[in-house]
Amino acid sequence: MGSVNSGGSDGRFNRRAITVDEAQRRVLAAAARTASGHVPLAAAGGRRLAQQLLATSVWPPFARAGLDGYAVRAADTAEASPQSPAALRVVDTVAAGGLALAAVQPGTAARIMTGAPVPPGADAVVMLEQTAEGMAGGERTALVKAAARPGQNVAPQGEEFRLGSAIAGPGELLRPGHIALLATFGYASVPVYRRPRVAIFATGNELLPVEAPLAPGHIRDSNSAMVAAMIRQHGGEPLLCGALPDEPAAVREALRGIGGEADMIVTTGGVSVGDYDAMALLLRSLPRYEEVPGWTSASPETLLFNRVSMRPGSPTSAAWMDGKLVLALSGNPGACFTGFELLGVPALRAMQGDPSPYHRKVHAQLAREIGKGSPHDRYVRVSLQYGEDGRLYADPLAFGKSSMTASLAEAEALAVIPSGSSGAEAGRIVEAWLLT
Amino acid sequence: MGSVNSGGSDGRFNRRAITVDEAQRRVLAAAARTASGHVPLAAAGGRRLAQQLLATSVWPPFARAGLDGYAVRAADTAEASPQSPAALRVVDTVAAGGLALAAVQPGTAARIMTGAPVPPGADAVVMLEQTAEGMAGGERTALVKAAARPGQNVAPQGEEFRLGSAIAGPGELLRPGHIALLATFGYASVPVYRRPRVAIFATGNELLPVEAPLAPGHIRDSNSAMVAAMIRQHGGEPLLCGALPDEPAAVREALRGIGGEADMIVTTGGVSVGDYDAMALLLRSLPRYEEVPGWTSASPETLLFNRVSMRPGSPTSAAWMDGKLVLALSGNPGACFTGFELLGVPALRAMQGDPSPYHRKVHAQLAREIGKGSPHDRYVRVSLQYGEDGRLYADPLAFGKSSMTASLAEAEALAVIPSGSSGAEAGRIVEAWLLT
Repeated sequence: MGSVNSGGSDGRFNRRAITVDEAQRRVLAAAARTASGHVPLAAAGGRRLAQQLLATSVWPPFARAGLDGYAVRAADTAEASPQSPAALRVVDTVAAGGLALAAVQPGTAARIMTGAPVPPGADAVVMLEQTAEGMAGGERTALVKAAARPGQNVAPQGEEFRLGSAIAGPGELLRPGHIALLATFGYASVPVYRRPRVAIFATGNELLPVEAPLAPGHIRDSNSAMVAAMIRQHGGEPLLCGALPDEPAAVREALRGIGGEADMIVTTGGVSVGDYDAMALLLRSLPRYEEVPGWTSASPETLLFNRVSMRPGSPTSAAWMDGKLVLALSGNPGACFTGFELLGVPALRAMQGDPSPYHRKVHAQLAREIGKGSPHDRYVRVSLQYGEDGRLYADPLAFGKSSMTASLAEAEALAVIPSGSSGAEAGRIVEAWLLT
Repeated sequence: MGSVNSGGSDGRFNRRAITVDEAQRRVLAAAARTASGHVPLAAAGGRRLAQQLLATSVWPPFARAGLDGYAVRAADTAEASPQSPAALRVVDTVAAGGLALAAVQPGTAARIMTGAPVPPGADAVVMLEQTAEGMAGGERTALVKAAARPGQNVAPQGEEFRLGSAIAGPGELLRPGHIALLATFGYASVPVYRRPRVAIFATGNELLPVEAPLAPGHIRDSNSAMVAAMIRQHGGEPLLCGALPDEPAAVREALRGIGGEADMIVTTGGVSVGDYDAMALLLRSLPRYEEVPGWTSASPETLLFNRVSMRPGSPTSAAWMDGKLVLALSGNPGACFTGFELLGVPALRAMQGDPSPYHRKVHAQLAREIGKGSPHDRYVRVSLQYGEDGRLYADPLAFGKSSMTASLAEAEALAVIPSGSSGAEAGRIVEAWLLT
């Protein structure tokens, strides 16, 4: 036999794996917060707040009746019962939106509606159902059939918020309950972070556009549409850019061509050790993160990493180019999904100001064994089951085959199985990272 | 003392409570499915599918290489080891998107890239890292250093889907994994249910628009914006219609005026026993559900219910008017939230074809006692905590005060505390309905 070259002699296997934690740290260091702007309150749900908002008044702004009935002085009703009701002269009727014209003096009461201001002097509201009304001595009189507790059915002024207290913090995801608070305090226009724009490129000569008929040796590009849906789900705006060219230099030009239109770039495919993996070749030409001590986003272009200790998706790579984060995902759908979930989603959250952009980590009992160990930590797609005993179970979905697209839609969490020579037995408690 | 009228003599307390289950059943019977239409795949994420979609080819469409390396006949490598590699003549190089030009005969191999079609004759792919290549006898030769298992690193044709097998069902919420499948099978345009349009009216003379400065005795309308955000969150399209007039007849006209612009109407406030509760007065004038045996959506206008055995929100009401569902929620923010969550959200899901529109019900251990019993089942807003022991805990949020707007944003589930004379002690396992 003549000359023999190891497949790795050109350095393509020289890729040092870093942990998922470290990869997330580097990606987040490169994920720049987007600018902020104002949107109308009606469009603010699901956006992330760009600054802390404060209560613009005390809340409630006045003592409010919690239900319909009579505003009374509780002391006047201390002995009241159905057999021996307290008879109180009705001095006023206060509607919601109205104002009390008369104070409630001892021996008197005011008819009051839900949400109306409680008149001065009154310290309780008796529900209408516990009263009757009639005339006594020519005067309108309420008969109160139950003793009232002071404060009963009254929401005191300022009970919930003091003027200037925080109602929502920067980076907070605005849920319907936040929207109610913002409306309460008059925020008709809301400062939020702009949606991060993310350019998506696919690589792979086998890829056809979704609308094309199948051709021999070809498949349709499913990763671009999937990643676009993930970007939208997490508040970003995807820009579908089609296919990258074959040559590293042309790839470089295509990425540069995006310019300011995108805040981040995601590519799928071309990161492995194949002869035509242009993305991998391009990234290998950049200075490595380890060569740039004290890396910050002010550093020149850098390969942040090109191997992560995770399965699926170990060739997942990231770089800092043209002042933006480039996330290079594997072309395998399962690895592409996991790579974007673990690295792209936290980046999107951080770009929208989320102060804790990581996944929520919970503990669950494995419903089934996960066979086989792995040299990398495994992120196994699981569905979650809630037992009647109050326990949480994680059920692995098609865990042996990262290419199994069918299970992507069912995944509710990624169960972390640490690297090692064995898998994990049923019943073991594992950490699971919730997908949202 | 002269004449005495019970507060309830005009029938305003004559409201028969039905269970939440029964209220949901009646609301769902009145929730008409919206029409369907097609949207581009890029806009289909988060929508609900209007029909079952099928695999348009087998998948994978051909036997695909799972990684870069050499396609071999496993039998040729049975004795291979690093010390004694199998030497196989390289007959072809197959790129992704290419076609195999030569079959792999005994004693030969083909260089192959991830995603490329495996040539006829080959039954395994050996990863590049376990090979070397050189020249032997003037011919290009692969040295395979490990024995291959038949089928290794090959995704066989049709492994995941048969032609015509179901990939997603009607009413299914399209998550990113579904989008990947739809792309795989060429669905560039996707049949989905139209977003239900929901008109929102507020009632209450104390209400100001969000942009208005506070005035004595007044508060801003926070329910309309909150319900609008909940509608959007669940796939609907809110139409903010402002305030309803004060008089039942005028309310009737306003609701009728919506015509075909809305698929459903939500009102907030005015459903209690107050003297000015126009919504309650209007609803009371309708024939009752119990008076219409075999009620269907073809029945004339009907009061579906005007009291539900739940707390908060017992005055929550619903009617069938002008061929659409009218959901009349309490004006108290906590009760409004719970009423829309328990009744409006399932209706929205059903209108978009969801075959199981109810909440996901889980079991969790109460992290803290819930004091006081209630004549109605209580739906207590809770946050969820996942213990390191794999247990799920429900932590009640400000549970005593349904007006506490601040806790709405934090709620992750509603814990159900059955009616009764006592509350529920810490540690008890309760049913919790997940909010999403």
